[in-house]
Amino acid sequence: MKAKIGILGATGFTGYELILLLLRHPYAEITWLSSESQSGQKYSQLYPRLAGQLSSDLENLQTWENVKASSPDIVFSCLPHSASAKFLAPFIQNGIKVIDLSADFRIQNLATYEKAYGTHASPELLAKSQYGLCEVYGEAISKTKIVANPGCYPTSILLPLIPLLREGIVSAKNLILDSKSGVSGAGKKATEGTHYIYCNESFSAYKVGDQHRHLPEIEEQLSLAAGESVKALFTPHLVPMERGIFSTIYADLKPGHTQATTQQCLQEFYQNSLFVKIRNDNPRTADVRHTNFCHIQAYQPQGTQKLILLSVIDNMVKGASGQAVQNMNLLLGFAPELGLF
Amino acid sequence: MKAKIGILGATGFTGYELILLLLRHPYAEITWLSSESQSGQKYSQLYPRLAGQLSSDLENLQTWENVKASSPDIVFSCLPHSASAKFLAPFIQNGIKVIDLSADFRIQNLATYEKAYGTHASPELLAKSQYGLCEVYGEAISKTKIVANPGCYPTSILLPLIPLLREGIVSAKNLILDSKSGVSGAGKKATEGTHYIYCNESFSAYKVGDQHRHLPEIEEQLSLAAGESVKALFTPHLVPMERGIFSTIYADLKPGHTQATTQQCLQEFYQNSLFVKIRNDNPRTADVRHTNFCHIQAYQPQGTQKLILLSVIDNMVKGASGQAVQNMNLLLGFAPELGLF
Amino acid sequence: MKAKIGILGATGFTGYELILLLLRHPYAEITWLSSESQSGQKYSQLYPRLAGQLSSDLENLQTWENVKASSPDIVFSCLPHSASAKFLAPFIQNGIKVIDLSADFRIQNLATYEKAYGTHASPELLAKSQYGLCEVYGEAISKTKIVANPGCYPTSILLPLIPLLREGIVSAKNLILDSKSGVSGAGKKATEGTHYIYCNESFSAYKVGDQHRHLPEIEEQLSLAAGESVKALFTPHLVPMERGIFSTIYADLKPGHTQATTQQCLQEFYQNSLFVKIRNDNPRTADVRHTNFCHIQAYQPQGTQKLILLSVIDNMVKGASGQAVQNMNLLLGFAPELGLF
Amino acid sequence: MKAKIGILGATGFTGYELILLLLRHPYAEITWLSSESQSGQKYSQLYPRLAGQLSSDLENLQTWENVKASSPDIVFSCLPHSASAKFLAPFIQNGIKVIDLSADFRIQNLATYEKAYGTHASPELLAKSQYGLCEVYGEAISKTKIVANPGCYPTSILLPLIPLLREGIVSAKNLILDSKSGVSGAGKKATEGTHYIYCNESFSAYKVGDQHRHLPEIEEQLSLAAGESVKALFTPHLVPMERGIFSTIYADLKPGHTQATTQQCLQEFYQNSLFVKIRNDNPRTADVRHTNFCHIQAYQPQGTQKLILLSVIDNMVKGASGQAVQNMNLLLGFAPELGLF
Repeated sequence: MKAKIGILGATGFTGYELILLLLRHPYAEITWLSSESQSGQKYSQLYPRLAGQLSSDLENLQTWENVKASSPDIVFSCLPHSASAKFLAPFIQNGIKVIDLSADFRIQNLATYEKAYGTHASPELLAKSQYGLCEVYGEAISKTKIVANPGCYPTSILLPLIPLLREGIVSAKNLILDSKSGVSGAGKKATEGTHYIYCNESFSAYKVGDQHRHLPEIEEQLSLAAGESVKALFTPHLVPMERGIFSTIYADLKPGHTQATTQQCLQEFYQNSLFVKIRNDNPRTADVRHTNFCHIQAYQPQGTQKLILLSVIDNMVKGASGQAVQNMNLLLGFAPELGLF
Repeated sequence: MKAKIGILGATGFTGYELILLLLRHPYAEITWLSSESQSGQKYSQLYPRLAGQLSSDLENLQTWENVKASSPDIVFSCLPHSASAKFLAPFIQNGIKVIDLSADFRIQNLATYEKAYGTHASPELLAKSQYGLCEVYGEAISKTKIVANPGCYPTSILLPLIPLLREGIVSAKNLILDSKSGVSGAGKKATEGTHYIYCNESFSAYKVGDQHRHLPEIEEQLSLAAGESVKALFTPHLVPMERGIFSTIYADLKPGHTQATTQQCLQEFYQNSLFVKIRNDNPRTADVRHTNFCHIQAYQPQGTQKLILLSVIDNMVKGASGQAVQNMNLLLGFAPELGLF
Repeated sequence: MKAKIGILGATGFTGYELILLLLRHPYAEITWLSSESQSGQKYSQLYPRLAGQLSSDLENLQTWENVKASSPDIVFSCLPHSASAKFLAPFIQNGIKVIDLSADFRIQNLATYEKAYGTHASPELLAKSQYGLCEVYGEAISKTKIVANPGCYPTSILLPLIPLLREGIVSAKNLILDSKSGVSGAGKKATEGTHYIYCNESFSAYKVGDQHRHLPEIEEQLSLAAGESVKALFTPHLVPMERGIFSTIYADLKPGHTQATTQQCLQEFYQNSLFVKIRNDNPRTADVRHTNFCHIQAYQPQGTQKLILLSVIDNMVKGASGQAVQNMNLLLGFAPELGLF
Repeated sequence: MKAKIGILGATGFTGYELILLLLRHPYAEITWLSSESQSGQKYSQLYPRLAGQLSSDLENLQTWENVKASSPDIVFSCLPHSASAKFLAPFIQNGIKVIDLSADFRIQNLATYEKAYGTHASPELLAKSQYGLCEVYGEAISKTKIVANPGCYPTSILLPLIPLLREGIVSAKNLILDSKSGVSGAGKKATEGTHYIYCNESFSAYKVGDQHRHLPEIEEQLSLAAGESVKALFTPHLVPMERGIFSTIYADLKPGHTQATTQQCLQEFYQNSLFVKIRNDNPRTADVRHTNFCHIQAYQPQGTQKLILLSVIDNMVKGASGQAVQNMNLLLGFAPELGLF
């Protein structure tokens, strides 16, 4: 039998990508799509690609009020932070499993969250939520009812670093995270910064060093892995392309460790993971475009005790909606590749 | 001595491009830049490329009110239609030469203008204005005080067609104008249609067939050239690139005429023009990017009496600000290439 | 039971796209991949996206000689023309069904083929082949053993025009086909014309008017539909994007026909087709990117008896490998959407 | 009187860009263009943009042999390394000033050069050459006869770092240089890696950490500035755009130093430089596209003693041909902005 699925805030980029993935999933049946700002509109007017592919019930966007009483098996939220925790709460209270693509349940420390995002709408639910980095927390995810789907930058940075920090292969000090993202990460809103002429043929940095809200999420997870408080430098950059994140990570290898021990650690950690590949050659974002894969390379420059980690994901798939489907597969006991291959 | 220049509505794409060109012009001195919506702001905050290149007087944008009494030698308007005719009027009344980059003085027939653009702000000035297609109307331009700088699509279409219609080489019936433009033609405003993700990796048509406001401008000029009323089909398309217009024009060759007579006609018409080149191979928009050139090819498919004209310009230069500078050179008696090579 | 599939010439763009689609197909099992020039290499070295997704048997590319004796249920050829007919012949002679993505079986008239492509390698097989435009020739395809998968430009042009010519809604005279394609259509070979710097930020035409080899294929099919010999003008253009074809078609409406009768004809013809949608608004290539859909709009400019048809496909999917899978589904009696939704 | 100029190896990207700049220079007169591989061809066939803009003498490319005896005032070499030193030698021996855009004279230490580039063709000339980083070595450049035009990555990295190392503001240890370049840096040759489909919509790294040949050039210059041997990590990345380099540099601030002292140092060092701007906001490569500018920002994350330097240039202008013209202006005593504004 198929799982019945509702999607809150379905009109943004991650909602659209999620629908595309779920339409391919053999055991998923979308039950409703909601949007506060565009309720009553036809979804296929917004995304003509879906003309004739959505069942008629889905065509018209619902308001969140209208769907509050419904009982799907699972609800995805593609709402912005704060709105997300607020509108998910009634579903959670009714025992419905939720996967939140916003930041609301990603950071366990409330003070850290509120410094970055402002007042939390449902802080009492934080303790019940599970950070949804699938390859790291798979078992815990399968037992939770509230999954915090990780941020796109964090996913690209945590997958290579967590195993190495856990095993004490790299130092928790002095981490430098230099990330580059396609423009879809900036969301659907038309602004000066998302204008074609502004983005095209230009490369830039933004929220440099300590200013991006994904950094506290990254640091909390790195600290858990390292067993000590981790501070890192994080510089996100904007690449003139639709999708893809490339993270270049500079770390200090601990004494006795080398490129070889690094590779071995990563290979072992991910040996049963379908979606994480450890490579010997330079990965490119195109290698993982429109996929749920993360490709990682570890390189130690000659004559140094430094490690350079290169990591690529598709920010819309593994960095958002794909990992959300992967989390659904974990939550509902489906095979991990369903809807994702 | 340098010509003193004012620019109305200097913050849009054409204003910026115009400033870049004028900063290179040996006999041009920009006196003021105005903007109603952003007055008081520093121009180099909007366009950091110009940091340190604008004199301090120009740094702060003026309101139009503030500059109304000034007496520059020439005023360019980069305002939208309607606002342009309104704000240019006081300068014109004071005998100052103006070059209007908006549509306000492009169409001589008032009814045609108002059907396309709405009420005209200064219809009494229409008769005194001159359509500024430099290679066609050079002598008249040098004697006028109000230049209507042509539209971008019209420039790419009229330069190949006017000589051939004047000489009766192609028929005035059955003209098909299939044009393709880079995104800068859509202007600086952030909208759904100018979002990077919407434009990138997509090709589309808009205002198909008879719906674009450049068509009446084109038809009026073609009718003048043909000596009869011309109706044409015009389909503009959007190309995922910053700048450039490519027009593919399909016409019927009149009896006795061939590719050879076509090429000869165009070669002769443009033999003294610095900026129009008749080519034997396929032109590309990259060939004229960031230049004031128009490259044209004429091709007659074997066994047909049809002519295919290919024409390329840079919509921001020859299709807007470059032709405006070329018009200034004509108005003020400067050498035609100044500021443009 | 799954169908066993072999792919000749698997390393080019269409071979890669075909593999991606077949890996998603529930009843397809790829048995071997061949390449003469790169045999012995690992496929996932060429396309790292497939690392860990191909079974080990497929990893190493075979030579065509090695696989000649194999008995798959179906063989796809992604070889260039001439090589394709030559290497498919032994499979055909052994009764194996083949789908040829090259031009070798697309044109029934041998003289027309040889004028465009040179000597045909297996002319005796032409009469047994079927042109694989699925929505038009579905029943015939299901009964043949040799499918000629249509060209990308022809697919985008024939889908809108064939119904209208069959029903006598548009004239067979005076057809103008103005098509625009992404760069993937130029193939994988590194040449001056496929260099990033050459293509990026430029729009161009090539093989203008009567010079492209897809034109005889188009004209043969249009003539069949019209019941008379059709000659058309065809101008292909190159768009700076990866994939997508946009065709703008100009036709004369026959007396008594209008936009409404055109739309009705197209709606009825495609009412049972999953993959062809008739739209009222302007289609964009992004609407069909990475899909097997064709979106069509018909527009009659006011006061004219002209019709403008806009048609979009993904050249790699509906214009190549997607339609090839659709043809396989027809050949083997599978549901039409398998592997394509 | 104009300076007579010859260009060796004029057909590549840097040669073309150099010609575009020199055609705008009021005191430059190009005397000949040479190319071994394409001699006898018309230059405007290769670059149609220049049709009608080159004097007839320049139209046909010369061989190097033919021009060896000529006596221009200055010779630019756009040849590859090794060929460059070889073909420049006879001009140098005849006392003609040369500006070499290849790597041949950039590294003073012969062993370092030969490890990176192989045997040097004219090692005896090394001692007479001057590294042509204009803002740093202006006076020395004006007195030399052999200018080694700096590499593109080195220019973007050295301009922010040299003043800070000279003044002891940042440590010479632990430098991390994370650079991103447009595709034009890869040169004109058509390869798998420069194919449009390979580059477009992808971001990648190459020659990671210690593998790029610009690193020894960078380290030699940084060591000179620091007064000690400097080793750095350098990761170049490829951005899907035509031009532009963005370098993100991570350094340790020495005790007592802050963002404020860093900015003050840079402001003072570049106070008389037309082409280097110290900014308080995030620079973008678009801000310097098609210009000879370098924009730099210095940022110290809160609570750290780390410095992040952001630096942008146009790799074809300040990173190659523009700096070459700037060097010519220094060599010949012209005003620094000629040909560059």
